[in-house]
Amino acid sequence: MTDTPSPEQLTAYTHQVIPILSAMGIEVIEAGRNDVAARLPFGPNGNHFGSAYAGSLFTVAEVLGGIYASTSLVLEGAVPLVKRLEIDYRRPANSDVVSRATLSDDEIERILAETQANGKSDFELTAELTDEAGTVVATTHGYYQMRKF
Amino acid sequence: MTDTPSPEQLTAYTHQVIPILSAMGIEVIEAGRNDVAARLPFGPNGNHFGSAYAGSLFTVAEVLGGIYASTSLVLEGAVPLVKRLEIDYRRPANSDVVSRATLSDDEIERILAETQANGKSDFELTAELTDEAGTVVATTHGYYQMRKF
Repeated sequence: MTDTPSPEQLTAYTHQVIPILSAMGIEVIEAGRNDVAARLPFGPNGNHFGSAYAGSLFTVAEVLGGIYASTSLVLEGAVPLVKRLEIDYRRPANSDVVSRATLSDDEIERILAETQANGKSDFELTAELTDEAGTVVATTHGYYQMRKF
Repeated sequence: MTDTPSPEQLTAYTHQVIPILSAMGIEVIEAGRNDVAARLPFGPNGNHFGSAYAGSLFTVAEVLGGIYASTSLVLEGAVPLVKRLEIDYRRPANSDVVSRATLSDDEIERILAETQANGKSDFELTAELTDEAGTVVATTHGYYQMRKF
């Protein structure tokens, strides 16, 4: 595809390819070439201690890597795969949570060029998760590989 | 409680306190003093690439830490909290997945004694995730803190 899909289209698409994201109610809210973001609603993801569940926080961060496959890491027959992910829980999250990540133009060009040349390219992605007050509740560092099949 | 609950009782309890685990169909299958295990059914957790979703694999490993709160890390008013978790994805999982972790008696005694004395105790937990063929599909290393409230 040549046109970048809207956040709404990407939300529908991610729910279709990964149905459990639909149960979590995860929404893509920004789908740019460099900046991507997703929202985790508290409702289905709260635990009975009043906090967003650790696995749901992980998921709203992990899913960001895949969004780039529809915005800037677009290469026929290639997809980004997560190889490793580290998450640090900083504070309990008692509200909806937004995850955000950024890839620079240089990094995007490197990943695409290496994947074209070698069939694969490793890249890292850092995400920050904030609650409704703007407090950082968790950070993640992901290790992905863009790979041609 | 003095009696250790059965895996079935712990499955029901975890679904009650963390409702999204119910949507994933995660089951506690072993709830011992030292050894704990949980199963992730492929059904609700598969993606449209035919593999178990990364966030569901994370969750079936992360949830093991909490099971000990009902088996051996039992201390009035104290619960284990996850501080950091690292997951390495080794192979795609195309079936149900079982996660397993072990805590030694010495480690359990250390955690309980430190929590009694200082109100908190850090501990680490390594989990292995295997598919139905016994292949290791992912490993996790979690950093928890047992904490009194």
